[in-house]
Amino acid sequence: MNMTLRTDPAPALDDLRALLGERLSTGPSILDEHGRDEAYTPPQRPDAVAFPESTAEVSTIVKICARHGLPVIPYGTGTSLEGQIVPVSGGLSLDMSRMNKVIEVHDKDLDAVVQPGVTRTQLNDELHATGLMFTVDPGADASMGGMASTRASGTNTVRYGTIRENVLALEVVLPDGEVIRTGSRARKSASGYDLTHLFIGAEGTLGIITELTVRLHGQPESILSATCAFGSVDDAVETVILAIQCGLPMARIELLDEVQMQGMALLHPELGLPELPHLFLEFHGTEGGVREQVASFQEIAEGFGVRDFAFAEKTEDRNRLWAARHHAYFAAKALKPGASGVVTDCCVPISALARCIGRTKQAIDMSGLVAPLVGHVGDGNFHLVILVDPEDEAEMAQARDLAATINRIALSLGGTVTGEHGVGTGKQKYMEAEHGAAYGLMKRLKQAVDPADLMNPGKLVRG
Amino acid sequence: MNMTLRTDPAPALDDLRALLGERLSTGPSILDEHGRDEAYTPPQRPDAVAFPESTAEVSTIVKICARHGLPVIPYGTGTSLEGQIVPVSGGLSLDMSRMNKVIEVHDKDLDAVVQPGVTRTQLNDELHATGLMFTVDPGADASMGGMASTRASGTNTVRYGTIRENVLALEVVLPDGEVIRTGSRARKSASGYDLTHLFIGAEGTLGIITELTVRLHGQPESILSATCAFGSVDDAVETVILAIQCGLPMARIELLDEVQMQGMALLHPELGLPELPHLFLEFHGTEGGVREQVASFQEIAEGFGVRDFAFAEKTEDRNRLWAARHHAYFAAKALKPGASGVVTDCCVPISALARCIGRTKQAIDMSGLVAPLVGHVGDGNFHLVILVDPEDEAEMAQARDLAATINRIALSLGGTVTGEHGVGTGKQKYMEAEHGAAYGLMKRLKQAVDPADLMNPGKLVRG
Repeated sequence: MNMTLRTDPAPALDDLRALLGERLSTGPSILDEHGRDEAYTPPQRPDAVAFPESTAEVSTIVKICARHGLPVIPYGTGTSLEGQIVPVSGGLSLDMSRMNKVIEVHDKDLDAVVQPGVTRTQLNDELHATGLMFTVDPGADASMGGMASTRASGTNTVRYGTIRENVLALEVVLPDGEVIRTGSRARKSASGYDLTHLFIGAEGTLGIITELTVRLHGQPESILSATCAFGSVDDAVETVILAIQCGLPMARIELLDEVQMQGMALLHPELGLPELPHLFLEFHGTEGGVREQVASFQEIAEGFGVRDFAFAEKTEDRNRLWAARHHAYFAAKALKPGASGVVTDCCVPISALARCIGRTKQAIDMSGLVAPLVGHVGDGNFHLVILVDPEDEAEMAQARDLAATINRIALSLGGTVTGEHGVGTGKQKYMEAEHGAAYGLMKRLKQAVDPADLMNPGKLVRG
Repeated sequence: MNMTLRTDPAPALDDLRALLGERLSTGPSILDEHGRDEAYTPPQRPDAVAFPESTAEVSTIVKICARHGLPVIPYGTGTSLEGQIVPVSGGLSLDMSRMNKVIEVHDKDLDAVVQPGVTRTQLNDELHATGLMFTVDPGADASMGGMASTRASGTNTVRYGTIRENVLALEVVLPDGEVIRTGSRARKSASGYDLTHLFIGAEGTLGIITELTVRLHGQPESILSATCAFGSVDDAVETVILAIQCGLPMARIELLDEVQMQGMALLHPELGLPELPHLFLEFHGTEGGVREQVASFQEIAEGFGVRDFAFAEKTEDRNRLWAARHHAYFAAKALKPGASGVVTDCCVPISALARCIGRTKQAIDMSGLVAPLVGHVGDGNFHLVILVDPEDEAEMAQARDLAATINRIALSLGGTVTGEHGVGTGKQKYMEAEHGAAYGLMKRLKQAVDPADLMNPGKLVRG
């Protein structure tokens, strides 16, 4: 883990302690907490954790670290899935949780200015009375800064876009401590290089996001959720493909295969859903529009032998359904008590989705592993949760092999190895295969913006 | 014009002629044609014009130019509005018009792979039978490469997004001739820096776009266009603001002020529209959805005293209406025969639009100039066509002063000086004011990607 390259942190920590007092922590439990995310990256403690409260403070911290050559690793909620927040070369973990204010809500412009520590549920709670909503919804209650940095998405993406389409402007502290603003609250702009999108998905390797202007959407007049079952995953996927091609503006269209539904039956018996491949659906619109969408969807699905249509009209039923979907990881783990999950994240053109899932299921069968499948199939994106005993090295190796096979399948079908979880350290080994010479350009950009390689070093691009 | 920095082009042209034969031109009329766009940048001839036919050829051309230090300026249809294609330091104009093939249409994925010389109407003609459409529609019949490079948009943006939201992937020749691919045909990705968006809007200053994968949309089941008049621009704008806030998914909502409508009456008397501020509208959806949208819109508009609602249901009536809108520039010029137009392009948060337009109209009144206003007001973006005699230096100076005033107003309201025309040479003087320290980062990126400053030098960022 690059131990030889590590800087003596003591001089930097002295300066940081003078600035932050008790908001610089070196307590063992704090260090442990900031040394691991939800992935299988080996944990690695930071040298210290800072809890800044303002952009000016972040700028000063970054300047101190730059002066002393100490790495800076931004930390949101610690729910990244590819090791993004693990300080692989030590350094300062910059915990943004105290910068958690919703600064402005512009209801007339459908946008909000937020600090990076605001979480998605916090923002939606604060928005509730305005009639507006923030739509990006990864499984975890992630922070705005973290979602932007990993280019997150979720179940609503098919209709409302990923975080990439939902950030208008950023404030960023650059590696030398300079504070810049990218973009504006204007809806569109042709004014210069698109710096906003450069920092979205950069995983903190180019600077620290200290403020975000995010797009909001009107809460729909009418919402209807539904589940339906199919005889095979293929039939479910073909239904999705046709619905997307017909331009049905569905808000959510999620696949859960028969293995995942076995876990659902264990963890959520109250849903009463059969152990068959399912689509979980949501329709947004006017009352008439929702009725039209449902009718069109049902017509398509009937062509593929849909059964067990169940509608959730009441808010509490809808919330129960989507909470179960967001916690699919835990339902998956119910299939193998004590197991952990190795999670995959490929995304392919939707026309290749049936083939990709078919080959994936073959690979799972050949591996002998248990690996339930859930997917944002309207985007061509799906996850396996490969269930493993993390202490069993042979099984872990098998799981990694299976994940590698599936990633190769996705690349061979014109897709990507990560639709929404990012690169971190976990996906770096695929970057040359996926991007070819373009990965070289990414390294040159990193070098230009962060020549000392102090911003989350070792992630996404290697120095 | 940096004459002292110009390279002797002869050695490069010898090598290029050996490669391209008659597809390298130094004919005076060809050089003139490639030395000016539709802006007021002083024309400047390139040293030669190349007409490449493949990516491999572009790569070889760029390598030859790199070896000899000759600037390369990509050229689409020459319809840029800020001097983007003018070879201000001489060099090779790279005319992409022969790379004009629609390579693949993926109807199941709603995307198409096209060469950069394909124009928007060419693509839509080729798509007609598929039931799909490409939505970005600037006034000119621009090329795909040009639209991507200037981050173009148009009248459909309020519903379908700008070119930024409608490009999935690019092939780009870098300044050293290396060919890279950015992105993939997968709908979303969290895989590395967002190089696609780095090249969109870069105006050819970072590399040459040689292929684009663009998003398509289903042709709507039902389309209805309409015009309506208001007693004041304010009433029209307040109608737009409320309609957007209510989440009406209108496909087009365009403002034409009373001055512009005077020009319309001169150039398009067949439309029979009164000389009052107008909105030109289009609704897309199912038949029921369109009816709902129209009813909601009418209810909102009635609150602001709308009158003279006229619907265009037939395709030919719709086409006539939107052709008139796309040629608004010519209708504007009809107001002052022989005049040319200095065009502005600011874009503000929609809540600031009424104020911005109000102050703009005051500034026009004080200037004594004639300046019709048309706008993609659903995006907060509007244009003036300031009518001037280009031979009258005093009037040109007045027009530039007026444009500067309007740009300052937009910046003071949190907007941008260019919603869709780009920077080129015309808007560089505003970059520091608009972006502050972020403009410095843009320069560093340019330096990192194009250290010899040979890709469209002098545009967007200055070397």
